[in-house]
Amino acid sequence: MSDLKQPQFNPGKGIGTPVGVAILGRGTVGAEVMRFMQEYSFDLENRIGGPLELRGVAVSNVEKHASEVPAELLTTDARALIARDDVDIVVEVIGGIDYPRELILEALKAGKSVVTANKALVAAHSDELAAAADAAGVDLYFEAAVAAAIPVLGPLRRSLAGDRIESVMGIVNGTTNFILDAMDSTGASYDDMLAEATRLGYAEADPTADVGGHDAASKAAILATLAFHTRVTANDVYCEGITHVTAKDIAAAKEAGYTIKLLAICERFTSDDGTEKISARVHPTLIPRDHPLASVSKSFNAIFVEAEAAGRLMFYGNGAGGAPTASAVLGDLVGAARNKVHGGRAPGDSTYANLPIAAFGEVHTRYHVDMEVADRIGVLAEIADLFASCGVSLRTVRQEDNGDTARLIIVTHSAAESDLAAVIIKLKNMAAVKSVNSVIRLESE
Amino acid sequence: MSDLKQPQFNPGKGIGTPVGVAILGRGTVGAEVMRFMQEYSFDLENRIGGPLELRGVAVSNVEKHASEVPAELLTTDARALIARDDVDIVVEVIGGIDYPRELILEALKAGKSVVTANKALVAAHSDELAAAADAAGVDLYFEAAVAAAIPVLGPLRRSLAGDRIESVMGIVNGTTNFILDAMDSTGASYDDMLAEATRLGYAEADPTADVGGHDAASKAAILATLAFHTRVTANDVYCEGITHVTAKDIAAAKEAGYTIKLLAICERFTSDDGTEKISARVHPTLIPRDHPLASVSKSFNAIFVEAEAAGRLMFYGNGAGGAPTASAVLGDLVGAARNKVHGGRAPGDSTYANLPIAAFGEVHTRYHVDMEVADRIGVLAEIADLFASCGVSLRTVRQEDNGDTARLIIVTHSAAESDLAAVIIKLKNMAAVKSVNSVIRLESE
Repeated sequence: MSDLKQPQFNPGKGIGTPVGVAILGRGTVGAEVMRFMQEYSFDLENRIGGPLELRGVAVSNVEKHASEVPAELLTTDARALIARDDVDIVVEVIGGIDYPRELILEALKAGKSVVTANKALVAAHSDELAAAADAAGVDLYFEAAVAAAIPVLGPLRRSLAGDRIESVMGIVNGTTNFILDAMDSTGASYDDMLAEATRLGYAEADPTADVGGHDAASKAAILATLAFHTRVTANDVYCEGITHVTAKDIAAAKEAGYTIKLLAICERFTSDDGTEKISARVHPTLIPRDHPLASVSKSFNAIFVEAEAAGRLMFYGNGAGGAPTASAVLGDLVGAARNKVHGGRAPGDSTYANLPIAAFGEVHTRYHVDMEVADRIGVLAEIADLFASCGVSLRTVRQEDNGDTARLIIVTHSAAESDLAAVIIKLKNMAAVKSVNSVIRLESE
Repeated sequence: MSDLKQPQFNPGKGIGTPVGVAILGRGTVGAEVMRFMQEYSFDLENRIGGPLELRGVAVSNVEKHASEVPAELLTTDARALIARDDVDIVVEVIGGIDYPRELILEALKAGKSVVTANKALVAAHSDELAAAADAAGVDLYFEAAVAAAIPVLGPLRRSLAGDRIESVMGIVNGTTNFILDAMDSTGASYDDMLAEATRLGYAEADPTADVGGHDAASKAAILATLAFHTRVTANDVYCEGITHVTAKDIAAAKEAGYTIKLLAICERFTSDDGTEKISARVHPTLIPRDHPLASVSKSFNAIFVEAEAAGRLMFYGNGAGGAPTASAVLGDLVGAARNKVHGGRAPGDSTYANLPIAAFGEVHTRYHVDMEVADRIGVLAEIADLFASCGVSLRTVRQEDNGDTARLIIVTHSAAESDLAAVIIKLKNMAAVKSVNSVIRLESE
């Protein structure tokens, strides 16, 4: 036998050894995690090989939770709870960045495994968190941070660990998908559908993180890190939200056989200088109405993974909500607990590939440009020349007479973002162009 | 700190420790596994923490592979290869049952982890294989056995380990989906489309395992075992293939807004006697044309998992083929190799729940019955009485005049299979019923 570790598993030994859990935060997700820990305790114990025992719940206001959580479990002192000898795993569902970051680092340093649903934190500080987990040899899991209950980080880490991932693309924010879907089906304005989403609980009181694309950008960073074995943070992700998408854009898209979705797109590609690079971006995107992502309605999420050997895979489900997020947290909790009982450790973030992250200008996309131009002979030729002079070739051109002006809708072939951006600047300065109504990127199969 | 194992992971230590691999069989999948092991060797080494080293490939005929595999790797003595001290993981891609079963048991007993793509073997003997893996404390992985590259066993084992799965339902056989899809889109007969599938390589020379539903039944057994933490073998699965599906059935389905798919359906339910039971079955099934599974075309696979907390999840992708199957095998290989290098063990089959498997008669389904009846007053009432006398209530009744006879299409509400079966026997003995043209089960959202 070669010089490898002998098996650590011992069927009889673990059963009965309790695994102590501390939960930091008791919002919607924290409450659901507690509920399922109780409801499924028999199943969880059997799947783990020992019972999960809740040692405490750290909250900012004990009174607020006193009617639902036994007094002896509630504490405002998260640090003391984490430090307890009988706490093996810390579940962080507080949200925010700085405070949970400190708590998680403290937990990891103390040899506790950590499960978190905090996408913003992981996307901003995964290097520091992963290093702390590696140094202590404990688990750091965050499946719930991307697409809630849809298993996608696990499959990237494990099932696809023997494949080469080319791209990960999907709808990873339920709030913006609800708004865009509602705009598409009703023809209503962005403001009205945001109000509707808020009324129905799909949007938070302050929707900035969602509608600005930042939430999706955090998820894109996490997906790109795992897919490409390269550290990608939220700052590396080009991010454009949906606040500027108008009812007119949606109507024009519909007319042309498209729908608009906020997509997170992570790609591996060979840049113009011949090196392999990766990119991650979030922006409103036109997709054909028969594209599988086009039928993802309401607040559902769907993620496509394209891998060299596996081909294209799709994962679909509830991307938000208390119970689906709790499902992902509990899956991670069982994994971390199994490792505490039986030994072993989950594969951490592997960032050996360390691929260069492309500047956004290098990324190749396609544009859909909707503009008003002077309705006179020669304008189309001028505009076509302008695109050509920037190295951008046209795929389709559609012209509609509009009285004094003509409406011109151009779809380009794939070109570098920097070239496409240069085209738009020049178009806006062109006398024959009355207005550029919208510029939206486009993906097709 | 409570009495739990201390972390086994040691970042510096594993790197460089080679992991020896033996491959048993070199058909399409074996060849692809070898190709990707070579092509991705840098990535695999980094993801594992040590290089994968191929020790040998066992084949039945060395000459046949001599031009593509170095002579020193080829052997006809699988047992000697497995027994080598420098073999840590055995990959079985031979197919069949008895011979690979012996080899895998030998490997597990010798402390080697095993990765197999062999659904028939796992579905028939998973208890024996799991016991051998548990006794030796090694890994037994078989993600490729169900839906090839689509990660579904991993998510059931891990991501959903903290949830309660209610049902798993899907299209898990590409050959039959290709045939049914082609029948649906062309209107052609089963025989013609089977011939087409054979010509295009979607069906094997002997298609019995696919068209008879046995391949799907093996997959259903594996899915049910993992989903319900209960040992389910292929013999426990009700299995009906597609050989009796006619062009007329397909046309009638289309007319009524349905399509016919061969579905594997695994469910947890409360039986009429009040106990919680599970069932697994494979049969042609009518589903509405707007059901997400209806749009799964050609040889693609798609699996729905419904879990209490997570809600409904869908997994979609290539369910067959050399490269997609190799992707799943390699993912498992990386997992087993990581455990060899870093310690730990994958969660095995946990069968603690040991739920009773329902007799097929207890399962509740809905029937779509297409028949010719005498066109006279009172027949419909007689037939409705007959259904009612068996405890089956009707959902829709459609009658079409057909000259001397009438065509009657009845869709029932959900009822016990035994009651539905009794209805059909009685219908066939009824004077007013000229013929029962088809009886197909039906699922809707």
